[in-house]
Amino acid sequence: MNIDMIRAAAGRIAGKARRTPLLSSPFLDEIAGRRVFVKAECLQHTGSFKFRGAYAAISAIPEATRAAGILAYSSGNHAQGVALAAKMHGVSSVIVMPSDAPALKLANTAAYGAEVVTYDRDKESREEIGSALAEDRGLTLVRPYDEPEVIAGQGTTGLEIAEDAAALGISRADVMVCCGGGGLTSGIALALEAEAPGLRVRPAEPEGFDDVTRSLEAHEVQTNDRLSGSICDAIVTPAPGKLTFPILDRLAGPGLVVSDEEALRAVALAFQRLKIVVEPGGAVALAAALFRPDAFEGDAVFAVTTGGNIDAATFARALETLT
Amino acid sequence: MNIDMIRAAAGRIAGKARRTPLLSSPFLDEIAGRRVFVKAECLQHTGSFKFRGAYAAISAIPEATRAAGILAYSSGNHAQGVALAAKMHGVSSVIVMPSDAPALKLANTAAYGAEVVTYDRDKESREEIGSALAEDRGLTLVRPYDEPEVIAGQGTTGLEIAEDAAALGISRADVMVCCGGGGLTSGIALALEAEAPGLRVRPAEPEGFDDVTRSLEAHEVQTNDRLSGSICDAIVTPAPGKLTFPILDRLAGPGLVVSDEEALRAVALAFQRLKIVVEPGGAVALAAALFRPDAFEGDAVFAVTTGGNIDAATFARALETLT
Repeated sequence: MNIDMIRAAAGRIAGKARRTPLLSSPFLDEIAGRRVFVKAECLQHTGSFKFRGAYAAISAIPEATRAAGILAYSSGNHAQGVALAAKMHGVSSVIVMPSDAPALKLANTAAYGAEVVTYDRDKESREEIGSALAEDRGLTLVRPYDEPEVIAGQGTTGLEIAEDAAALGISRADVMVCCGGGGLTSGIALALEAEAPGLRVRPAEPEGFDDVTRSLEAHEVQTNDRLSGSICDAIVTPAPGKLTFPILDRLAGPGLVVSDEEALRAVALAFQRLKIVVEPGGAVALAAALFRPDAFEGDAVFAVTTGGNIDAATFARALETLT
Repeated sequence: MNIDMIRAAAGRIAGKARRTPLLSSPFLDEIAGRRVFVKAECLQHTGSFKFRGAYAAISAIPEATRAAGILAYSSGNHAQGVALAAKMHGVSSVIVMPSDAPALKLANTAAYGAEVVTYDRDKESREEIGSALAEDRGLTLVRPYDEPEVIAGQGTTGLEIAEDAAALGISRADVMVCCGGGGLTSGIALALEAEAPGLRVRPAEPEGFDDVTRSLEAHEVQTNDRLSGSICDAIVTPAPGKLTFPILDRLAGPGLVVSDEEALRAVALAFQRLKIVVEPGGAVALAAALFRPDAFEGDAVFAVTTGGNIDAATFARALETLT
């Protein structure tokens, strides 16, 4: 992994991925006690940053191989990113999803053009199903984060942050990133190291699922005790990745952990002050920027709102925190 | 009014107003039966396009005059746009608002740095109060739409649409714009006439408040019977403006009228598919693009979502249309 791969990915996704805006509001600045700049990746195609990595990875596969189709395992944002990116390349995709995934996610993934293959979480192995499909049809697997070209694609977000920070005249600040397996966080870390070395990445995680924060403290991979029960489901993974953790260990600042309630308040404030729709897991970085003022130095902080795929009922629940 | 004024305004607001993104979703394309491109002005500073016109107008006032301060009448988005634009120029602003305006709007306007002067709608004249203040303090009035530099500022939205349409290879399409007094609609019309003559502006209005649509049919100014009772309050004005109507009469295509229910559905679909927060009055153009397929030719349509200043209760009501 290096900055050249990220620059190459930026060239491939140019005009395909959206250059998402950097948003701010004096009301949020007041809450945080400093200027807060929000990189709104929830406005990316398919509603999350995952499209960047999916497109970058698929575009890096040799054409003859790619033509046979793409494979992914995911019940969430990665599924939709891969489905749309494959469609834009004119190739088929198969997404292996648990049969008990929310109907809307299954339907959305199919609507982006993927063939959805469901499996029984309790009785079947998605890896076995996927391997059989891959072998039969010659599909290429695109992993959600522990995949160099995926990390490169997510890192393009960091190139844009570096560019926008320079335009604002900001050379020193922390950049909070909602962190699951660490693909986005490590990609941004590498981009900033090269393009804006005074900006430092820091992971944000939900309470009880703080594997990356603990791993950074211990300088070795720590795991989560459980994988369900968080409202921030989009960013819950077993542990930081084999490729992503060494990058984070070298470049990231300390992690910050926020409660579900704080994530919901950040969702509501993003609604009220920025006019964007953010899912709880995509709001933990903003929550940390707003509600942990003592964790930062300097007069500016960046936060990446990584996704906006939230159902109406959960969003309504978040809005209740405004009253 | 001419294109040179719009280009000059674009130069003055560069780096001050946001260049808002053009968003789309295959799900919306399917509903509309053609490609739908949404210019997300709800992501503009203060949550509406009004900031563009306010900044353009204030920046056009000679510095010595401007230093004495700015005056505006508004209970809504124009108030916030003027307040922030004045603050960014380092000058004071006085906004005359009805004392029964929503507390949140009064508070927000004050928070953007304005001095809010309230008046009793039944007993006092805002014009008399404003004139007295203007004379006492030498304030300069910035009108919400019937003001050349305001129209020029709003027209910068059209320059961006023209640029994005060219990048997409689209040379013929209708551009639906949520229309109140017509400042934005006429500004965009002038910009497109010069920069993308195959793109045609058309106003969108709420049912029962369709003064512009009727005025365009009659080729003379028609008025609304009433000014309250619409959920789309942000775009309800008595009649098209004296400056804006001749421009619209020359350049705009037929208006389209949508119901409150359709506006709320468009708010909900913008939440679900674009991850943006749009107020009902800011969603009528998108509603027309989605729900009036027979009113368009060609395979693409643009819609400007003009504002996102909606309270949580109304937003929750809109989300109920999804189920």
